[in-house]
Amino acid sequence: MSTAAITTAKEVFDLLRDDLVAIEREFERLSTSDVDSITEIAGYLREGGGKRIRPALLLLAAKALGYTGNSSIRLGAVVEMVHTATLVHDDIIDLADIRRGRPSANTQWGNSKCVLAGDWMYMQAFRVALEERNFRVLDLLINLTQQMVEGEMLQMERLGRAVTEQEYYELIYRKTACLFRVSMQLGCVLGRASQQMEELLGDYGRNLGLAFQIVDDVLDLTASDEILGKPTASDLREGKATLAVVHSLQHGTVEERADILAVIEDQSFTRVSHERILAILQRNGSLDYAMQVAYGHAEAARKNLSILPDSEFKRALLWVPDFVVAREK
Amino acid sequence: MSTAAITTAKEVFDLLRDDLVAIEREFERLSTSDVDSITEIAGYLREGGGKRIRPALLLLAAKALGYTGNSSIRLGAVVEMVHTATLVHDDIIDLADIRRGRPSANTQWGNSKCVLAGDWMYMQAFRVALEERNFRVLDLLINLTQQMVEGEMLQMERLGRAVTEQEYYELIYRKTACLFRVSMQLGCVLGRASQQMEELLGDYGRNLGLAFQIVDDVLDLTASDEILGKPTASDLREGKATLAVVHSLQHGTVEERADILAVIEDQSFTRVSHERILAILQRNGSLDYAMQVAYGHAEAARKNLSILPDSEFKRALLWVPDFVVAREK
Repeated sequence: MSTAAITTAKEVFDLLRDDLVAIEREFERLSTSDVDSITEIAGYLREGGGKRIRPALLLLAAKALGYTGNSSIRLGAVVEMVHTATLVHDDIIDLADIRRGRPSANTQWGNSKCVLAGDWMYMQAFRVALEERNFRVLDLLINLTQQMVEGEMLQMERLGRAVTEQEYYELIYRKTACLFRVSMQLGCVLGRASQQMEELLGDYGRNLGLAFQIVDDVLDLTASDEILGKPTASDLREGKATLAVVHSLQHGTVEERADILAVIEDQSFTRVSHERILAILQRNGSLDYAMQVAYGHAEAARKNLSILPDSEFKRALLWVPDFVVAREK
Repeated sequence: MSTAAITTAKEVFDLLRDDLVAIEREFERLSTSDVDSITEIAGYLREGGGKRIRPALLLLAAKALGYTGNSSIRLGAVVEMVHTATLVHDDIIDLADIRRGRPSANTQWGNSKCVLAGDWMYMQAFRVALEERNFRVLDLLINLTQQMVEGEMLQMERLGRAVTEQEYYELIYRKTACLFRVSMQLGCVLGRASQQMEELLGDYGRNLGLAFQIVDDVLDLTASDEILGKPTASDLREGKATLAVVHSLQHGTVEERADILAVIEDQSFTRVSHERILAILQRNGSLDYAMQVAYGHAEAARKNLSILPDSEFKRALLWVPDFVVAREK
């Protein structure tokens, strides 16, 4: 086993290739129902891809702890399925037209069928998890999904108004970091980790997830439509204040604050342009600030791994935070 | 213990009064979240009432089998919560304005929040069930909710067109009878029933649920708005063919069939009046036919109980099918 640091996505992918292929097959098998519309919608969502970062975390945690069984394949498919179920309901709620560069499922099948397809995918995820006959696994998943749904509801309550930095962190914990955390914890359950190990690896997931979402939110403000696969600044267009915006609301001038609030309240750039908002964020160093916070969480995530014995899987986990903060989409 | 037959709802209610009060309190406790909108919507749905027939079945089954513990209170609240979660998502799907004589939750809070409130209630039901630490309970509930969601999706696929009598039975099994069945089965799990007993009492629930829904569908065609607490013939207005309508489609004249199909395809009485449809159903004896089928299932339900030793709970279960087919709303 080489002790050299892992430095490319390909190295990590090579490490997990067979398992990720097996998870993809499992996900496909689980997305099949006797009811045609469900199979169609679930298939469309599955084929839309995504980075499969959550199953990869689960695999890496389990393998770093010496787990060699097949439950990681099934539970890897389960976490991706939960993720997909939240996306389809979120797209209905956000009235999203585009997801991952394609029309969102709700524009193709309508909201009603997508509500049901999301319900079905949640239940299918629980059904598969239930087959593991492990109450800890079920406790983690039920807590997770409820936290995520509550988070989305909190997000809705806060649309169109300024949020505090604390509120922002709570929202992105529930939206993203909680599932990253549980993916690591499920790997720990399979690898029979000690409670301390599970807490630290769970914290790795939480820190990584926070870094991931902060970067996602910065990219939403700065990247082009083509790179993102969805319209730029869609958060602001939906009335969501993300970290850089919250920073400028706190540190900007009275005029700058008013301009930002106009966009958030209007949920559009009608009164104030996207360029003006970017200029405000630049002048206040808000985009840099958000990235610094993301780097901090990425570093904290790496530190959470110190308890873990060296292995190629640990080295992959050490690499992931770099990938997450350096990505461009 | 009296051996006289139970003949009034009050007698059954008296028998279960303390438990139903406890279930109501438990349901209220479980409908509380840190997130205000969830507590508000869940509270509104809970206060909307309903007959609490599903928890009553669970209680009667458990008690008829000699069960005396508290899990029947928690699981009673769980089945009512699952029922409520399906209603809130169904109302979004059916674009319903009215439910139980009040504005539906989606007209009050909007679809987005109601999607999330429904998700949350499903998950809360699973969370409480999970606390029982009984895999059989979880298997029953996951199968149930997935069957119900698939049924609603099948219903959507079939909107606006004639269905066969077989398709109709499948839809109402999934929509209603499956939850009646599982309520009885959960009572059996608590009462440690034999497999044969669970099958027979489950069949009682299925037959009762079929009778219940057939009568519901007849009332939708014939009762007045005030009695139903929702607009008359809402099924036809949503493009749903129910048993009496299916019967007339099979036995009516070519003109009658065309008139019925016009209403179902239009999802309105624009081209053909509600009175004309009722006249068609009367002429073909279709409403009587549907009621005869309902009576048949009610009778079959009573026969499913023959295995059960006599008790006041058994006598209450014998009475329920009469109540279900004789009700006017």
